[in-house]
Amino acid sequence: MPSEFDLIQQYCQRLTAHTDLGVGDDAALMTVRPGHQLAVSTDVLVAGNHFFVDVSPFSLGRKAASVNLSDMAAMGATPRWATLGLSIPGMNEGWLKDFCDGFYQALSEHGVDWVGGDTTRGPLNLAVTIMGEVLSGKGLKRSGAKVDDDIWVSGSVGDAAWGLAFLQGQVELGMEAQQYFRARLDNPTARVELGRSLLSLAHSAIDISDGLLADLNHILVASQVGAILKADQIPVSKLLSEHQLDPSFWQAVLRGGDDYELCFTAPPHHDHTIIELSRKMNLSVTRIGKIVSDAEQRTLLNYPEQGVGQPSWQGFDHFRTLS
Amino acid sequence: MPSEFDLIQQYCQRLTAHTDLGVGDDAALMTVRPGHQLAVSTDVLVAGNHFFVDVSPFSLGRKAASVNLSDMAAMGATPRWATLGLSIPGMNEGWLKDFCDGFYQALSEHGVDWVGGDTTRGPLNLAVTIMGEVLSGKGLKRSGAKVDDDIWVSGSVGDAAWGLAFLQGQVELGMEAQQYFRARLDNPTARVELGRSLLSLAHSAIDISDGLLADLNHILVASQVGAILKADQIPVSKLLSEHQLDPSFWQAVLRGGDDYELCFTAPPHHDHTIIELSRKMNLSVTRIGKIVSDAEQRTLLNYPEQGVGQPSWQGFDHFRTLS
Repeated sequence: MPSEFDLIQQYCQRLTAHTDLGVGDDAALMTVRPGHQLAVSTDVLVAGNHFFVDVSPFSLGRKAASVNLSDMAAMGATPRWATLGLSIPGMNEGWLKDFCDGFYQALSEHGVDWVGGDTTRGPLNLAVTIMGEVLSGKGLKRSGAKVDDDIWVSGSVGDAAWGLAFLQGQVELGMEAQQYFRARLDNPTARVELGRSLLSLAHSAIDISDGLLADLNHILVASQVGAILKADQIPVSKLLSEHQLDPSFWQAVLRGGDDYELCFTAPPHHDHTIIELSRKMNLSVTRIGKIVSDAEQRTLLNYPEQGVGQPSWQGFDHFRTLS
Repeated sequence: MPSEFDLIQQYCQRLTAHTDLGVGDDAALMTVRPGHQLAVSTDVLVAGNHFFVDVSPFSLGRKAASVNLSDMAAMGATPRWATLGLSIPGMNEGWLKDFCDGFYQALSEHGVDWVGGDTTRGPLNLAVTIMGEVLSGKGLKRSGAKVDDDIWVSGSVGDAAWGLAFLQGQVELGMEAQQYFRARLDNPTARVELGRSLLSLAHSAIDISDGLLADLNHILVASQVGAILKADQIPVSKLLSEHQLDPSFWQAVLRGGDDYELCFTAPPHHDHTIIELSRKMNLSVTRIGKIVSDAEQRTLLNYPEQGVGQPSWQGFDHFRTLS
């Protein structure tokens, strides 16, 4: 059996483009460009909790990269470097190769260098740290939302939750729909380009990992403001909209996690610019509500049929297990 | 039960000293000082592999920090920031508090800010990423060793392996010795100050995590040189030297992992300065051999009784489990 070192050498040592010293020493060395802050985020994915054990390793590698890229997107940062702390039950070379290929592919699509990490034996566990650069003082924080800001969300929400509900046997789907929802769950797109473009436009931003309401609430708490959402404005995909009479529909849309879209707030005078940006990027962004001053009330939801109501604040809690 | 967010808030959010934005947003933001490279390393510790499941959480927290601080020491970098990806089987608040206290304490002793991470449910797994600064171009790489360099090692080696052998029931020890060896195993001291002081003196450096021979060999391979070691010069503690007739003694000294001492090479004209430095720091450093040009032969060991021999290259492989 090749040693730990041989395998790391073989699969985890990839070409780097903007790293002074990559995998193979006690630490990687890199240079942060002048005028930039370093942005750093760590996310852990655990088998049986964040993903099913039998997920394809290539797909899992992509997702491990994407959920971290999404954190950079939410700060408006340009992702630059990543490390991977990988625990695997045994040395399955095929699995390791496919996983590393997927991880590397998703990083490469965003120009991110894979600069190091650690591979060890243990229950399947992926800890990714991603590092990026953001113009000093310009990063999109959760705490910047201002009264009268419009609340926006990119793409559509609820698809990943619907894919999960299918895998858990809670909803039935045709073949085409299965493929669509599973792809949205397994292969989310980090909105890196959008985040970066919002640096001079948005007051606050977050990526939707725990559910729209839960993540928006992080902005509201950090900014000490409230929100009024128009539930019927929240963007859902064509395929998900076919299920709008399903009792789980609003749960998926409002509280479904793992979509990795961006939720952000911006002053109304930027509306036109944001819509233009959306056209140029060929990525829909939708106004779903307003920031208001009543921090006590947090969020009022205007459901199309039931009128105004106040949702509770439980998002997708990663302390629940899938199975 | 408090949510994931509440617990992270409570235990993992600590005061920071040189961080622009810490725990609580999508990413932490910090500024790398001009003229410095960013040094980054990730280490994973898995229960049953790197530590026993019943180890004290405070002690485990310290060790998780220390093994990462040690990677900064080996680069001559000044550690500045750390993130923790923590998977725990259940929400044991007492355990989490003690672990976080230990982790934070060890970081604080070296002026390191805890800037973020992720806490999730899963088999016990600790993934730490540490970030530091090193004067641009001055970092101590493995690849810098030159023929005729002296080979040095800090402190003493083999103690951690002896502590592990005791825990595995392979050696018997009195109470005082038990305490000593367990402390060396559970609470290693990262040689951060020494590493930083060696920036202008050493040609290469590595920390001893996999065993003296295995780690020295990383330097030899990266530098394309060989080494001759004087086995009887390798520093061992007074308590370990009492076991020098034990059949496991040389195994522990040469191949025992987890000591986290520094092994470095430096040109002979720096010998005096290095010895002076050692005195000032009150930390022994010992010359244990020479770098030679014969890269084919790698390392010759001069054992005190058996004469010259060539060791094999297997260090402590973290793919073996403890139990």
